Amino acid sequence: MSINYSNLDNSKSFKGLVDAPVPSIKKELNPERIGKYSTPAGAGLTYNFAGKKVNSEILGLLQNLADEQQLTEKYTSLLNGDIVNTGEKRMVLHHHCRGMKINDLVVDGQDMTEFYNTEKKKIYDFASKVHGKEIVGSTGKPFNTVVQVGIGGSDLGPRAIYLALKNAVTPKMTAKFISNVDPDDANNTLADLDFETTLFVLVSKSGTTQETLTNQKFVLEKMAQSSIKGLNPLKHFVCVTSAQSPLAADTNYLASFFIDNNIGGRFSSTSAVGGCVLTLALGSDAFDRFLEGAKEADKQALNPNIYENAALLDALIGVYENNILGMKNTAVIPYSESMSRFPAHLQQLDMESNGKSVNRDGKAISYATGPSIFGEPGTNSQHSFFQFIHQATSIIPLQFIGFRKPQIDADIEFQGSTSGKKLNANLVAQMTAMGLGKDDDNKNKYFAGERPTSLLHADKLTPEIMGAILAHFENKVMFQGFTWNINSFDQEGVQLGKLLADKVLNNQMDDILKAYAGIMI
Amino acid sequence: MSINYSNLDNSKSFKGLVDAPVPSIKKELNPERIGKYSTPAGAGLTYNFAGKKVNSEILGLLQNLADEQQLTEKYTSLLNGDIVNTGEKRMVLHHHCRGMKINDLVVDGQDMTEFYNTEKKKIYDFASKVHGKEIVGSTGKPFNTVVQVGIGGSDLGPRAIYLALKNAVTPKMTAKFISNVDPDDANNTLADLDFETTLFVLVSKSGTTQETLTNQKFVLEKMAQSSIKGLNPLKHFVCVTSAQSPLAADTNYLASFFIDNNIGGRFSSTSAVGGCVLTLALGSDAFDRFLEGAKEADKQALNPNIYENAALLDALIGVYENNILGMKNTAVIPYSESMSRFPAHLQQLDMESNGKSVNRDGKAISYATGPSIFGEPGTNSQHSFFQFIHQATSIIPLQFIGFRKPQIDADIEFQGSTSGKKLNANLVAQMTAMGLGKDDDNKNKYFAGERPTSLLHADKLTPEIMGAILAHFENKVMFQGFTWNINSFDQEGVQLGKLLADKVLNNQMDDILKAYAGIMI
Repeated sequence: MSINYSNLDNSKSFKGLVDAPVPSIKKELNPERIGKYSTPAGAGLTYNFAGKKVNSEILGLLQNLADEQQLTEKYTSLLNGDIVNTGEKRMVLHHHCRGMKINDLVVDGQDMTEFYNTEKKKIYDFASKVHGKEIVGSTGKPFNTVVQVGIGGSDLGPRAIYLALKNAVTPKMTAKFISNVDPDDANNTLADLDFETTLFVLVSKSGTTQETLTNQKFVLEKMAQSSIKGLNPLKHFVCVTSAQSPLAADTNYLASFFIDNNIGGRFSSTSAVGGCVLTLALGSDAFDRFLEGAKEADKQALNPNIYENAALLDALIGVYENNILGMKNTAVIPYSESMSRFPAHLQQLDMESNGKSVNRDGKAISYATGPSIFGEPGTNSQHSFFQFIHQATSIIPLQFIGFRKPQIDADIEFQGSTSGKKLNANLVAQMTAMGLGKDDDNKNKYFAGERPTSLLHADKLTPEIMGAILAHFENKVMFQGFTWNINSFDQEGVQLGKLLADKVLNNQMDDILKAYAGIMI
Repeated sequence: MSINYSNLDNSKSFKGLVDAPVPSIKKELNPERIGKYSTPAGAGLTYNFAGKKVNSEILGLLQNLADEQQLTEKYTSLLNGDIVNTGEKRMVLHHHCRGMKINDLVVDGQDMTEFYNTEKKKIYDFASKVHGKEIVGSTGKPFNTVVQVGIGGSDLGPRAIYLALKNAVTPKMTAKFISNVDPDDANNTLADLDFETTLFVLVSKSGTTQETLTNQKFVLEKMAQSSIKGLNPLKHFVCVTSAQSPLAADTNYLASFFIDNNIGGRFSSTSAVGGCVLTLALGSDAFDRFLEGAKEADKQALNPNIYENAALLDALIGVYENNILGMKNTAVIPYSESMSRFPAHLQQLDMESNGKSVNRDGKAISYATGPSIFGEPGTNSQHSFFQFIHQATSIIPLQFIGFRKPQIDADIEFQGSTSGKKLNANLVAQMTAMGLGKDDDNKNKYFAGERPTSLLHADKLTPEIMGAILAHFENKVMFQGFTWNINSFDQEGVQLGKLLADKVLNNQMDDILKAYAGIMI
């Protein structure tokens, strides 16, 4: 089938959506719908959309939109190695890191699944030697701590996943992260470390990331200043980079693991970028299970039927909320403290991918693209910004994530219920309250309702489920980009700041940079 | 002078703002303006607004709006104990916690400054005995760790401030926090603790907060299960609550410290709610300095001239962006890793205060109120969602916070500059890039600019400066509420969820709650 790329506002079903009456959650929500409006997301993860402002008419139009914009066909094309990153003229291969493919993909004579598998096996082999104390620190002590030195996609995803899974398995090592070029970040992290037992993972695809190279130097210098006898800083560093980067040629690293330019930073959690630190910290079994869950979600995302493809449906409902209902934000609320940093990862994943104003051919578009994303865990967020969600003048759809069971099996009962039950009673209450609201003659105590909610849910936050959740959002963002006809895989918007920062550092400032620098430097 | 409360859209200057031409940052920005558009925020903190979409005409209208809406007069009225929390019929007295007042305020025969001072002195006395090992744990060991058990305002503010200041002074104790009712939160925090040397601070104004009481029980039960000989859990708990709460009468606590109902949770960081944990962790000197900075900012906020009152000007420019320019979000970006959790505190402070749809008299209003707030530290955010800020279809104003020097004096030089210089070079670059953009024939590399930015800056993040920053935002939010004629001090929007959660836990569910509970419980 031939694939046509076309702007959203050219599509017939989009016009249909503009004209269709907007459903009322209050009128639509009932127990039967809660059972029925439920879609598999892969690996036991389920997407419930009963709380969304949709009905069968809107869903029919969204299915038409998916068909018209050939969303699953474009996903297949991406999997097959077509150049969907049109800006940088690259393939988009993060799915292949977890073994997802339709056909074998050979690039420059290299089977890509084999390439990613080889790097993964190198990591597993290295990690097993570290765990088995075969590879030890320069003073002979076993490593018990791994510190990822990276920023953006080399930090947010791996950090969020580590926090999400460190209670799901028995960790092999403690993981820490240094990302910011602010020296207080590195100094703080280093203050709590025992250099002798710490292994650093330097992660930079390009090998030129200012913050990451600076922080590598920071660590090396602090280790060199240490009075520990026999400490050899270079024997405490491994590297994850691309084969073309200047770092790849550096033989000083204890080991080097490679990714390629077809993996974008924000999509790199299932590549060596996430793989190295997560395998060292959580073990290869956990990382395998994580990849398996992601792959299951990837498979589910192939289904052209929106009722059987949660990522596709979630994407389309998001487009409806954004482009028809004018809701420009989405709040992601995991009812799980372990997922506390996952919204920060999604913030990058979604906003860096779809915060664009030109289509994939570089032409300006005239409709809204990606929403802005934020979130904090429930129930904490209930005591923070939920006042706004319930009663403010603008409406922010909520993407809830919940699990029937806590990760740690050590709950207590108090006033007739466990903490876990209280947590989920709150989630259930919020889903109901947001949609239905509450009448009150006192307008200060009146809740209009009609706040859209959805729920991604599973029995427990396991490595498989974390993988499925991650891939669900990666695929949602991809489908939304296809719907808007934008390139979700480049980030030209970050270049100007880098350029000007270099001008400041190289003393090539114009008058305005100079005036601002006068305040801050 | 008599005070009139009136909706924003009744004001003449608001109509003037609607009609005034919108200035262009590209046209307005020049070195002279960067020097001139700078306003004191108190205690050495400065607000620079050269990057905002304003000019002398707009600023003149904003001054008129401030005068017409009597913003500083309303602040004075609040300080004097008028019932500005109209919904709950309460005074708003958080300024008095730091000694800010115009006249002595006596409530029920009690001088309120004296009340807050007395509680503060009780805390200082207690903390000094803990630090001096006069008060020790039940097994005789000195306390070295303090754990705040609280949620919302009892968690976000104190946590953010502790993280911001633990490198600014020599800490007396390590602070940790348990907030979420998710049992994984408490289990995780407790796993790293030594019960013998840990002091818990239970914080709940009402004494009925579900999460906090549950977590208290959680801790008590885990301590009771411990095999440590002689451990008496009750000898490890102090309490911060209101004198009317059921907890106030409980004599089992090692000590109790009081607040009153005129202090809102999100405004309570300078009361005993923040005072207890921060004094234990950082010492009374640091807390005194923090209060002093807040008081300085409070004083600055009395000035009716917008050019000499940063909180007032920041508030008014925010209203202009929101209600005239249609920008519904604000991103807060501290270029300081120590301030990593401050945006989460502001999210509550701002969104819970001004996420309202009715005016202070409970009548529906027809204009936008509070923006939605999110943020992460720079430079990390540059590698995350800044793509969106530079190039997306919707514009999000940026509130930068920066310091000339890092907190920890242990920087390194690499490639000709320190990490601290690199950090601020990036901040300077972003302020310039956001406003000016960059032309490019390739539309994918084109930056439209015209993204509003402001900068709160100081020499270093000290306790005084942290106090001033906190008070700046508290006062900004207050001034915006006055401008919109809403009550920024209640939160009726959080009640419905509590009610429905109780129904779930007491098995009084209707069919919809039951259907959702079937999925999650």
